[in-house]
Amino acid sequence: MSERPFIVRQKKLSAALSEHKIPMLALNPGPTLSYLTGLHFHLSERPILFIYSSDSTPHIVLPELEKGKLANLDFDLRSHTYSEDPTTWDRAFRNIAAEVRLDSRRVAIEPRRLRVLELRLLENAAPRSAYVNGESMISAIRMIKDADEISSIRKAVRVAQTGIEETRRQIESGITETEAASELVLQLLRAGSDSELPFSPIVAFGKHSADPHAVPGKKKLMPGDLVLFDWGAAVDGYVSDITRMFSFGEIDEELVRITEIVERANQAAFEAAHPDVSASVVDAAARSIIFDAGFGSYFIHRTGHGLGLEAHEEPYIRSGNGQHLLPGMVFTIEPGIYIPDLGGARIEDDVVVTADGAERLTDLPRKLVQLGT
Amino acid sequence: MSERPFIVRQKKLSAALSEHKIPMLALNPGPTLSYLTGLHFHLSERPILFIYSSDSTPHIVLPELEKGKLANLDFDLRSHTYSEDPTTWDRAFRNIAAEVRLDSRRVAIEPRRLRVLELRLLENAAPRSAYVNGESMISAIRMIKDADEISSIRKAVRVAQTGIEETRRQIESGITETEAASELVLQLLRAGSDSELPFSPIVAFGKHSADPHAVPGKKKLMPGDLVLFDWGAAVDGYVSDITRMFSFGEIDEELVRITEIVERANQAAFEAAHPDVSASVVDAAARSIIFDAGFGSYFIHRTGHGLGLEAHEEPYIRSGNGQHLLPGMVFTIEPGIYIPDLGGARIEDDVVVTADGAERLTDLPRKLVQLGT
Repeated sequence: MSERPFIVRQKKLSAALSEHKIPMLALNPGPTLSYLTGLHFHLSERPILFIYSSDSTPHIVLPELEKGKLANLDFDLRSHTYSEDPTTWDRAFRNIAAEVRLDSRRVAIEPRRLRVLELRLLENAAPRSAYVNGESMISAIRMIKDADEISSIRKAVRVAQTGIEETRRQIESGITETEAASELVLQLLRAGSDSELPFSPIVAFGKHSADPHAVPGKKKLMPGDLVLFDWGAAVDGYVSDITRMFSFGEIDEELVRITEIVERANQAAFEAAHPDVSASVVDAAARSIIFDAGFGSYFIHRTGHGLGLEAHEEPYIRSGNGQHLLPGMVFTIEPGIYIPDLGGARIEDDVVVTADGAERLTDLPRKLVQLGT
Repeated sequence: MSERPFIVRQKKLSAALSEHKIPMLALNPGPTLSYLTGLHFHLSERPILFIYSSDSTPHIVLPELEKGKLANLDFDLRSHTYSEDPTTWDRAFRNIAAEVRLDSRRVAIEPRRLRVLELRLLENAAPRSAYVNGESMISAIRMIKDADEISSIRKAVRVAQTGIEETRRQIESGITETEAASELVLQLLRAGSDSELPFSPIVAFGKHSADPHAVPGKKKLMPGDLVLFDWGAAVDGYVSDITRMFSFGEIDEELVRITEIVERANQAAFEAAHPDVSASVVDAAARSIIFDAGFGSYFIHRTGHGLGLEAHEEPYIRSGNGQHLLPGMVFTIEPGIYIPDLGGARIEDDVVVTADGAERLTDLPRKLVQLGT
């Protein structure tokens, strides 16, 4: 990693806060905290809040027993700890609010991450502050990946691709979706993924593939099944997210056909991805192929989402999103067609926007692949 | 599972809501939603909210593409969906609020789970409602496990124990903490854990064991290292959580000694666990052993926490918690001693309160075990 990346990122945040005339940012543990500080905590029954102010040292309130994680930071951070007695939380929050002079200020928050637990403790400690949505300000920074971040995502793609290649060989008639998913998790870890995968793999056989967010179940693989795998890996916290379609034995011609249409939609979206076109243009490119083929009403989700420390982040590749694409943005392209009671197909690549177009980070074949051969 | 367990649980909730004179409960996806409905969703950038009312059908607002998950429920549920355009969220929340007549009512929420995203959408749709903390009302129900839940936790313990036995054989000099943790994850999945583990295993070698929430790193195993493993498995969503201490070669006598003290503290807490004593009594039993041995200031966390659909839930076994123990409660007993720059020891069992005492679900030896032999 480059030298002191967290300092560089905190400076970008300070500039954004100044520009928006917001003096501070309050964060729950999560990807933005990791991005700014390298710190990782799980959200638990114990509150944790990080407060960044553009004109003073950052502060954090956390349980005493988590304080060890603050050793070896390469920037100053003031900590306020509390004990195992929840009645001490309030005092810790009052302390941090007083020290950063939080009351009566505008405070940026992330509504998608901040819990009501920490919001209420903040409101008690600083009742006259205004808590405003800082998500677009933060995502404008996080959306543009630096070379180290792109390198980590590349590694996460490589690990995911190795994992599926190993898993594919283990698939045979009668295996359940759950068993196939467990085998894939094993192979992802063996290939070098972080132990925390970005999400549990989706494995769907036959009709089950018609549910875009299918949870693997007890269904057994039978000849004639279309098979959908949607999986990812993580390296240094950065993630990949891929979907590929397989067939087991001879499958219904309609399923072959929708897979081919989705493949063409994927290609059209990829070709549309250029700096300075908006995200909606990429979505429209995929959508028009599927619409023209007569399956428009079966493409029930957006074309893609950003990737980074989160498996879903900005930029969202959807109709109506005027966000311009810029070099360094990384996102998925994943058109799909889902026909209830028949099956669904989705083909998902990870791409990075370059100076003059986009590069696919994923290079597995996009065609339907026959399993068990 | 017993017949229609979700109906039974929803009836308990209705009774509790009536008792507390709160007409409804609003939930984000998470363990309480799974407990009441069997539904699983991941928290994502898209809002999802379930509203339970004691006098009408439950409602849920969710993205159109998640609607497939509502098939095959064994109770009535009204859904309100929205498309991929975030400007449609507000209308979906207004619809659900109108249908359940949510405005101007008291609405129970879970501050530890509910995000500001959904809170703000609710507040916009029902500006005159009061959002009150329903956590203790819910945990009073979830804390008492039925026979099926205890059976699932037993299985999760068995899987975790099989996983560590297999892993222990793979540990040799020079392995890193991260490698040992990955091996353990592999073995847990192979032994039959749900693919979503309750938490990433903690593996800490040598001095690193002095951090109770250590994250596995690049440290290599060397003779003379004390080794801490803290791991769990999940079966049907129910979790186990175990810690055991190992030695690699000859270790410092002080480390042997603290491990023995922790083992005695674990035993004392186990013997104190009976129906109708309070959680604080169990904590005090462990704490007094460690205090009397002169290490009181190095036992920096509570003695345990409840287990179920969450790895940390009520009852918390801590000083000051007057919660009476009741048959069917399941929790950890995990005293520890952490000496900075030397090392730490923790021994963690999972126990269930019975009619006349408690039963340990974990039966791995609690003594220090020599690795690599």
